[in-house]
Amino acid sequence: MKALIKITLKNGVLDPQGKAIENALGALGFDGVSGVRQGKLIELDLAASDAPAARAEVERMCQNLLANTVIENYSIELVN
Amino acid sequence: MKALIKITLKNGVLDPQGKAIENALGALGFDGVSGVRQGKLIELDLAASDAPAARAEVERMCQNLLANTVIENYSIELVN
Repeated sequence: MKALIKITLKNGVLDPQGKAIENALGALGFDGVSGVRQGKLIELDLAASDAPAARAEVERMCQNLLANTVIENYSIELVN
Repeated sequence: MKALIKITLKNGVLDPQGKAIENALGALGFDGVSGVRQGKLIELDLAASDAPAARAEVERMCQNLLANTVIENYSIELVN
């Protein structure tokens, strides 16, 4: 089973990397772009084939290692 | 209109960051995890309200700045 984890900064947390992208897009002539935020995307393969168990395991991975839950949100998507 | 851009390394391109995550997960006792790949997730707001035009603009942004198309794939998702 494949898991796709999206990790994004919480609202209100400054995102200098996103701001840099926004400025660079403006400098390249892309107008009307705002609110750029950069996050992380982690794909992994799990041995578990039971969806609820797999989701619980990935949830624990996010809490323990993948996301900094003080400043980041995460969402988990399972793909068979 | 909101755009969500997923940027992932192409198959065959080494991903040391993903490998480090895989090793760390193993060290934390998460067994059966393999094929970890880390990518980028970029969210942005566009002034354009016409979906095909917005998609074309984001496509150009990916080609010109956001993705390194030699080693990375990207996918674009528009949200109204």
